[in-house]
Amino acid sequence: MKKNLKIAILGVTGAVGQELLAILEERKFPFAELKMLASGRSAGKKMQFMGKTYNIEEATPDSFKGIDLVLASAGGSISKALAPYAVKAGALVVDNTSAFRMDPEVPLVVPEINPGDIATHKGIIANPNCSTIIALVPLWPIHKVAKIKRFIAATYQAASGAGAKAMEELQLQAQDFLAGRPVQKNVLPHQIAFNVFSHNSKIGPDGYNEEETKMVKETKKIFHDPDIQITATCVRVPVLRAHSEALNIETEKSITLDEVRALLAKAPGVKIVDDREKNYFPMPLETTGQDDIFVGRLRVDPTVKNGFAMFVSGDQIRKGAATNAVQIAELAFSA
Amino acid sequence: MKKNLKIAILGVTGAVGQELLAILEERKFPFAELKMLASGRSAGKKMQFMGKTYNIEEATPDSFKGIDLVLASAGGSISKALAPYAVKAGALVVDNTSAFRMDPEVPLVVPEINPGDIATHKGIIANPNCSTIIALVPLWPIHKVAKIKRFIAATYQAASGAGAKAMEELQLQAQDFLAGRPVQKNVLPHQIAFNVFSHNSKIGPDGYNEEETKMVKETKKIFHDPDIQITATCVRVPVLRAHSEALNIETEKSITLDEVRALLAKAPGVKIVDDREKNYFPMPLETTGQDDIFVGRLRVDPTVKNGFAMFVSGDQIRKGAATNAVQIAELAFSA
Repeated sequence: MKKNLKIAILGVTGAVGQELLAILEERKFPFAELKMLASGRSAGKKMQFMGKTYNIEEATPDSFKGIDLVLASAGGSISKALAPYAVKAGALVVDNTSAFRMDPEVPLVVPEINPGDIATHKGIIANPNCSTIIALVPLWPIHKVAKIKRFIAATYQAASGAGAKAMEELQLQAQDFLAGRPVQKNVLPHQIAFNVFSHNSKIGPDGYNEEETKMVKETKKIFHDPDIQITATCVRVPVLRAHSEALNIETEKSITLDEVRALLAKAPGVKIVDDREKNYFPMPLETTGQDDIFVGRLRVDPTVKNGFAMFVSGDQIRKGAATNAVQIAELAFSA
Repeated sequence: MKKNLKIAILGVTGAVGQELLAILEERKFPFAELKMLASGRSAGKKMQFMGKTYNIEEATPDSFKGIDLVLASAGGSISKALAPYAVKAGALVVDNTSAFRMDPEVPLVVPEINPGDIATHKGIIANPNCSTIIALVPLWPIHKVAKIKRFIAATYQAASGAGAKAMEELQLQAQDFLAGRPVQKNVLPHQIAFNVFSHNSKIGPDGYNEEETKMVKETKKIFHDPDIQITATCVRVPVLRAHSEALNIETEKSITLDEVRALLAKAPGVKIVDDREKNYFPMPLETTGQDDIFVGRLRVDPTVKNGFAMFVSGDQIRKGAATNAVQIAELAFSA
């Protein structure tokens, strides 16, 4: 892999930004320089990383001179505004936001699925939505063999998907609720502590929220399969940082549960946690801090031809965002 | 309705037992005498109800002399052991447990759906499983008109389904977790606070847990439709007492979303909460303490013929158990 890279992290103070730093260190990502970029609000603050003190700088169009790689997670509008400048300055932008995901010029990549798409980039590579990544990593090996015709997802999404402040809000609300105090809502539209609500993204004219629509569109692009049918119900649950999903799947070719299990057992980025006797299956508390997507509750669905079901869980901030982005960067600079 | 009934509540100290008392009072259920029955552990304790002090008695085969109605929610093995004695003593048993639900001699009743089955009882009427009731109350008016061929449920089930002690455990765990103390597990098999896990019922050889299998079998019996196809994933979430479910539905006859909405708007026991603009849909925090099943997220599912989806939420202890049981009793004694 190319050494001595000059990296900028755009949105370094956010939940994903912080995890990006941790993952660069863990994976010994070879960088010579690191630039910490954030909004004007955080500019001037200092941050420790790997024994060094960094100044957080305000991200501007001029921030990218000499930079090889921008890992961006400061929100869609900031990526839209600044990524073109980073590209013009010669950097590769790996973008965690939804800004460019459906742009036909921009590859949308899960390294376990479509690493070949990385080579087609024109300066920007998009990182998929977290719920999409968490579903697709285990679905891909099945799709390759048996062709998934349709899948139905119901998600159990953590507060982390709405950022570090939503995670704090969940904890504060839980404290207030347990103490019998009124609960404050500042980040999420509804109380999340001891509650469940439909995902807090905008609802389109078809009644689907943006999170659900992302899963539908991104899956087709990542799988290079415009015909695959996806329908989702995205829901927030009072969990801090890992997303879970109940998946119901129909394949074109018949495939046995043993074959599915064997495919998943050797699939990269997947861990089978499926102990029926002990009633032990994937749980967000256990996938928190992990890179693998845990898969369990594997069973045949006898109500449809070639049907089966599973339950998956993965860390939204890691494989759902930061890990996937760093994996993309590793591949992009490995030539 | 017949007056001066002599009622026994079997399992009066449990979450459902307590709610049964509240609902008898709320609905002005006409009773002349009330007997509070529980296990030997609670026997001898006193309980206040409607300004009177009751002695809690140990439930034995001899507890039912002169009793007209037993509302039972002390667990399946206790119902199995004691219901036959209650029937022999001339009482009607409305049983909240799973003991008799699939017994062909025992009607399984949701008053909004199959009240006519009440008349066929031979001393016992079974109250369905909570997740079944909460799904079926809004599905029935659609089934009657368009015939549901298949539905897929993913549940978001509260701690209350595992009893009052599980509700306490959720709160204790949340307190300990927030304070950084180790979390204690005594009732549920896994940490429920800030976590999600597959429903804690036994897994059958087909990979489905008992909760899922109940939904499948009970729906066919309540709808009198052995052909309806149901598949479910049942999951516990850190919510205190209302269950939610994401439902994906296929009907035999084509039906528009407006027609579905119109059917639900006039369906007994259903409240539509479906404000796309405000992102305001059914939430367990708001169905807690309510008898109606809230329905929202109504949308067409374009990935299947005659497909649509919805999200429902209902109070597990009320309509999912106690309210439904008292409604059955009201109808049974209204002749």
